[in-house]
Amino acid sequence: MVCLEEMDETERRVTKGMQENQDVPAAQGRMGQVERRENEVRSSYLWCSNSESKFPSSDVPIKFDKILYNEFNHYDIATGKFTCHIAGVYYFTYHITVFSRNVQVSLVKNGVKILHTKDAYMSSEDQASGGIVLPLKLGDEVWLQVTGGERFNGLFADEDDDTTFTGFLLFSSP
Amino acid sequence: MVCLEEMDETERRVTKGMQENQDVPAAQGRMGQVERRENEVRSSYLWCSNSESKFPSSDVPIKFDKILYNEFNHYDIATGKFTCHIAGVYYFTYHITVFSRNVQVSLVKNGVKILHTKDAYMSSEDQASGGIVLPLKLGDEVWLQVTGGERFNGLFADEDDDTTFTGFLLFSSP
Amino acid sequence: MVCLEEMDETERRVTKGMQENQDVPAAQGRMGQVERRENEVRSSYLWCSNSESKFPSSDVPIKFDKILYNEFNHYDIATGKFTCHIAGVYYFTYHITVFSRNVQVSLVKNGVKILHTKDAYMSSEDQASGGIVLPLKLGDEVWLQVTGGERFNGLFADEDDDTTFTGFLLFSSP
Repeated sequence: MVCLEEMDETERRVTKGMQENQDVPAAQGRMGQVERRENEVRSSYLWCSNSESKFPSSDVPIKFDKILYNEFNHYDIATGKFTCHIAGVYYFTYHITVFSRNVQVSLVKNGVKILHTKDAYMSSEDQASGGIVLPLKLGDEVWLQVTGGERFNGLFADEDDDTTFTGFLLFSSP
Repeated sequence: MVCLEEMDETERRVTKGMQENQDVPAAQGRMGQVERRENEVRSSYLWCSNSESKFPSSDVPIKFDKILYNEFNHYDIATGKFTCHIAGVYYFTYHITVFSRNVQVSLVKNGVKILHTKDAYMSSEDQASGGIVLPLKLGDEVWLQVTGGERFNGLFADEDDDTTFTGFLLFSSP
Repeated sequence: MVCLEEMDETERRVTKGMQENQDVPAAQGRMGQVERRENEVRSSYLWCSNSESKFPSSDVPIKFDKILYNEFNHYDIATGKFTCHIAGVYYFTYHITVFSRNVQVSLVKNGVKILHTKDAYMSSEDQASGGIVLPLKLGDEVWLQVTGGERFNGLFADEDDDTTFTGFLLFSSP
């Protein structure tokens, strides 16, 4: 599994480039627009994480504790929440291994359930997934949570099975 | 569920920015190229919709009637078709709740079935999904449809289950 | 099914634009940065392929032999491997039709298994999927492979069922 400490040279350069650009003030006029675009595109934010937690609690953010990619730590593994630091339009997706119990999850924005996925456990591993385009403003919080209680928290992950929550910026708002 | 009327301040600003840029003529020369890029990137098109229709008809576009994000209304809820207004390369994806009947769908471009997904109904909710990169030119139409008749239209959506069809522009063609 | 020989006018123009830009040296100074961005964005790389191979061998790259979109042939249908020619951050996703046998696959980067998906075969078609954000440097290789031997290679594709492996560049590294 690729964790942050295994970040290779390319990843370090990407990170460095993003950090260097983050605080560059936009110049004036047309060139300024170009500079801002430059900044916007490079600072595209992405993360991908994987949960090894068994049977996560209901009605609170699932804590994905194995980070695959998390520039700037905008996804907080301590809380399970992503906080928007770049206003814009994002794509979020999750791929869930369903095992030993049913799964019912919601993708939540600022406490409001936006996207709902339910998958019944039969007798062995099954897969469920969801995806959504979501506009966010600064400070918005997004997370994935179990809904429906302990009969519906069969999200599973082990060395052969991943359960992931991913998001990336499609474009930033002006 | 987020509907268009619940669009918040960020979303309104994004929409405004896109509209302002839509008709800006490209300047000449190198600066012109930059201006066009600026325009192209900002006018990235996305939508995400959700169907609450039960048992959609076979061999016609599924009408996703609950809009999550649909800038410019390029996705037409009256017909169920997306019409390309920005030539380029798109990513389309769908996540389907399978319930009470089998599901067999095709993603269709201009009447030609491009991507095919089939999932058998067992005894409770299951999930199926598909995704594809698709180059489009102006006027191309894309939709999702049931194929195989009434035994294969078990797409389901209610307050705990979503069935979504999503697309976004990856890059516009010159 | 859309194959490369069916590429339409838009696609040809996209391809042409990308080829024209590929070897343009970046100019110096600010304008140079802009030119490079122009080049980077246009050369976004994507592919989408579909396997009709039944029961692929374990522990080697699955050869997706039906190409839906493969600019520059960075995905090699002879080997089943994608080789990175543009350093940056990519999104990879796969959607698998599970039929007649279980499925256990891994997305592999340079021989290291990064993402794992398992789905048990019950009695008819089922669907499994996975997706991941992955930073790549020049020369990195990515593929999908069956793990777990012949009991886990039930990936299926026919005229009504696709199994796809897709990737696209989110942004290139500086």
